[in-house]
This record gives sequence, C-alpha cells and structure tokens, in this order.
Amino acid sequence: MYGVLADVAEQFIRFHETETGEVKTLDQIAGLSENQAFPFARKHVFAPGFFRTAPLIPHSMEVVKKLSEEYEIFIVTAATEFPQSLAEKQAWLGEFFPFIGWKQMVFCGNKSIINADIMIDDHYRNLDQFPGFTILFDQHHNRHRENGRHRRVFSWKEIEQLLL
Amino acid sequence: MYGVLADVAEQFIRFHETETGEVKTLDQIAGLSENQAFPFARKHVFAPGFFRTAPLIPHSMEVVKKLSEEYEIFIVTAATEFPQSLAEKQAWLGEFFPFIGWKQMVFCGNKSIINADIMIDDHYRNLDQFPGFTILFDQHHNRHRENGRHRRVFSWKEIEQLLL
Repeated sequence: MYGVLADVAEQFIRFHETETGEVKTLDQIAGLSENQAFPFARKHVFAPGFFRTAPLIPHSMEVVKKLSEEYEIFIVTAATEFPQSLAEKQAWLGEFFPFIGWKQMVFCGNKSIINADIMIDDHYRNLDQFPGFTILFDQHHNRHRENGRHRRVFSWKEIEQLLL
Repeated sequence: MYGVLADVAEQFIRFHETETGEVKTLDQIAGLSENQAFPFARKHVFAPGFFRTAPLIPHSMEVVKKLSEEYEIFIVTAATEFPQSLAEKQAWLGEFFPFIGWKQMVFCGNKSIINADIMIDDHYRNLDQFPGFTILFDQHHNRHRENGRHRRVFSWKEIEQLLL
C-alpha cells in the first residue's frame, strides 16, 4: 500500500519540510532508506494524519480499478507495527479505493504469510520470500540494487501494460 | 482469534443478558449461528469494549506460549469488517499474548490469502479453503456438522497434546 498506492515518499517530504523547513527532492534521496532520507521518519509515521492524508501514486486508483475487473485483488499492508495507523489506513482505502471491500484488505506485520499469484511491492524483503510472480515498484529506497528475479516497474501505467 | 483464543460465545452471553435480561446457556445455543443465538449480535460487535473485554478461552494463553517455542505462530483474525475493532483487538492481544509481536498479527477479511502449515479455526469457511492441516475448534455454531477432513478439538489442552 505505502510506496505502491500511497505516495509515502512525497508525504515524508511534506512532513520533513514542516518539521525542518528543508525541502528535499526525490533525486536527493535516491538510494537512501526512509530513515536515512528523513531523520524524523519515525516521528512522522506516528503523527496523526500521516497515513490518512497521504497522496495517491499517479494512476494507482484507475489501474487497480481496471485490474479488479480481471483479477482477485487484495491490498496487503504492513500496519501492525503502528497500531494507531490501522483506522487511518482503512479510512484512506475507503476514500480512494471504494471498490475494494473489507474482505480484500489485509493488515499485517510480516508478508511471508501471504499466499497469492502476483505481488506488487516496493520492498525486497517482501518480494524475496514470495513464491509467485514479483513486481518491484520503483522507489528511492530500492534503487541502486539489482532487481534479481523481480520485474521492476516505474509507474502504474507500466503495470497496466504488463498485466492487462 | 475469536472462538479460539477469545471466548466470544461467553461475551455474547454477557452482552445479551445486559441487553435483554435473559441468561442464555451454551446448551441452548448449540448448533445455532451467532445471529440465530443472539438476535442483537450485530449490535454487540459494534459496541465499544466488546472485543477489548472478551474473556480468554481456558488455557489458550499458556498453550500458545508453549507452541510459540516450537512453532512460528501467526494470529489471524477477520477484523476488517469491523474497523473500530482493529485497535481493540490489537490491545487485547497485547494484554494477554505479550509474547506475540506485531510481525505475527494479521487483520484481514478473507483468510483464503493465508499461507501456513496448520490452521486452528472455529469456522468451516476458513478451514475448507486452507491447503494445510486443519484443526476445528469446537464451538456452538459448528456443532451438528460433519468434521470432514478437519480434526475437531474441544480444548487447548487437546491442542497441546496434538501438537507438542
């Protein structure tokens, strides 16, 4: 969900600016982890509204809607580390992805328990342990590493071409 | 989680008594679904505190603790139908199962996405679609039906004998 549907990098940039006055660019943070790029990341994710007001990654809504007509979709998000985020994340999904029902939502900690055919994720740790087809969504923190067996994509338009 | 770790039948009996003054017994509700047994079930599950104050099923805490020394344990609960329940459920787990970390919690709607070796559940709809070894935890609503391929157990002591 974060880094794939919700633009968490953009949200960190906003919160970082509010916190410090400094405006970071995506180029500046390429190859850096969230904690390296944003020294107050841990504080930001506990701030009320951080998850609820995250912007959408371009075209995620329209392409997931098209995919949901051809595929059985589950939205899986690592959420239990931040209990206060659960309600915000579900409300955010309800606003932008109203066609995703409660039966299709999974809030977990470790995605190794997930069984499906295709996984789209921005973290190697989730994709590496997934047995099916893996799509790596390009993000600042996963650049400068080999793709391995994962197919790297740079946009939802590319996912649309790949899967539809 | 509910009907396996948390005694949801007992909690419904309490809430039903508060609502109507009528004291139901487990014998009276054998073979009945929750909605058949408790006409106000839908209201109860939305009541603040319903999940947070649910009593434990006897020996669930001690046996899960022993199991967690031998097995990798995930607590999977159908929670996204009741968004307000997410925080209560996680707080309840934190109180009674502090040895279960956030990485081992899964809040979902449909358990067909779960990949594991053994599933302990009180609902056929979850066990029937699970590919691994299935343990049916005896509850009023699953009585009077064939066990099928599932192994029915009546207590956590029985699970301890079976798995340890």
